[in-house]
Amino acid sequence: MNIGVYGLGRFGFFWSELLAEKFTVYGYNRSDLSVYPSGVVSSDEKTVLDCDVLFFCVSISSLGQVLMNVADRINPAALIFDTCSVKVYPIEIMRKILPESVGIIGTHPMFGPDSGKNGVQDLPLVFTPVRIRANEAENWKKIFNGFNLKVVEISAEMHDRDAAFTQGVTHFIGRVLDGLNLQNNEISTTGYRNLLTIVEQTCNDPLQLFMDLQHYNPYTHDMRNKLNESLKNTMRMLAEADPVRDA
Amino acid sequence: MNIGVYGLGRFGFFWSELLAEKFTVYGYNRSDLSVYPSGVVSSDEKTVLDCDVLFFCVSISSLGQVLMNVADRINPAALIFDTCSVKVYPIEIMRKILPESVGIIGTHPMFGPDSGKNGVQDLPLVFTPVRIRANEAENWKKIFNGFNLKVVEISAEMHDRDAAFTQGVTHFIGRVLDGLNLQNNEISTTGYRNLLTIVEQTCNDPLQLFMDLQHYNPYTHDMRNKLNESLKNTMRMLAEADPVRDA
Repeated sequence: MNIGVYGLGRFGFFWSELLAEKFTVYGYNRSDLSVYPSGVVSSDEKTVLDCDVLFFCVSISSLGQVLMNVADRINPAALIFDTCSVKVYPIEIMRKILPESVGIIGTHPMFGPDSGKNGVQDLPLVFTPVRIRANEAENWKKIFNGFNLKVVEISAEMHDRDAAFTQGVTHFIGRVLDGLNLQNNEISTTGYRNLLTIVEQTCNDPLQLFMDLQHYNPYTHDMRNKLNESLKNTMRMLAEADPVRDA
Repeated sequence: MNIGVYGLGRFGFFWSELLAEKFTVYGYNRSDLSVYPSGVVSSDEKTVLDCDVLFFCVSISSLGQVLMNVADRINPAALIFDTCSVKVYPIEIMRKILPESVGIIGTHPMFGPDSGKNGVQDLPLVFTPVRIRANEAENWKKIFNGFNLKVVEISAEMHDRDAAFTQGVTHFIGRVLDGLNLQNNEISTTGYRNLLTIVEQTCNDPLQLFMDLQHYNPYTHDMRNKLNESLKNTMRMLAEADPVRDA
């Protein structure tokens, strides 16, 4: 089985190296890379599109355009995975754009080079079969389990709702705090140092990922409004109870 | 040397137990306790006020009233410590209210029963001598170092400015996120689980501590405004770049 990884950005780089521990992996990136993922065969677009299995590791917002560009050149017997951090939207466009003949599984590997730097054991991989025979889906769950990942099979809607209030809120807080230019200092508490780590890790990811997470997950709007509301409530509670100073 | 701890709330309880590992410690609490800190002698107010050394572990907002109530009954040769999470305000009122004869050192032990549950090694204790002979201050730094604490000697102003943007921002984020009633679920990322821990730990502390931290630190107003501003900027950036949805 040949696996192609289309897109070797921050996540695709990490993911292709992981897959290459067990499979022959061909990697393609639109622009040249100065460093190549270790164990991955540097390939042209055609070679990757010819693979038996194809993982798309492109940004959420570019997936539609990429699929339209390549749809009629994909191996017609291929199994296609997306790896996007939202699920409703990419599954919708994969169904719409990909040829009828290919298999489709949505995934969201919920980790990256930061959280997975000491291994991916027990980290969650969301698994959403779309157009695939049950036994083949089972087989892929076993393969991902074989990497010690925690495979979580849920619907795209459930994923997006839960992710908005977990990963979505984390990234949003990380970006908001980044605007304060927070620093470590000698009186940093344990909690504060943990907060700084969250800011660093979320802001290590591309800004595009943050924007796409917030735009293409239908539940993040609600999350942001609730957060904004809670901030206002907290500010109001403080102002009303203020005994001395900043009234 | 007898040490008195005045106030056995969440922090005073923890602190008196720590001190009792090395000293004879008398503890007093305004109301009866069902469980008493281990190794600490349960005492009446008079016994504690007669001690050679006296730590006040009361809320920031009640310190002024407590000091006015006890000032003329304190051992006139005592050394007085506060342990408040802000420093400018309590030092100002200790100078004003305490008798001329007593020594004064401001401290902020930057930990509590959560962050110190596996030991206090290397956790910071802010140390601000106010009215004390240099050799006696040095002696107390050695004593705190003897508990493996990291003694940080800084001015009250520097403490409050730095604490507003470290401990202050952490508690503020913790309380704001608490309003979202966030839950752990099977697709929680590592960063999100760390964020949940911050929420839990900050909300384990009394609400009064949060309110006092925000009200009595002259720099937290600025911190909250910057945070609010950054949230608005992030919301605006998302709205302006929105390709599809929640415009």
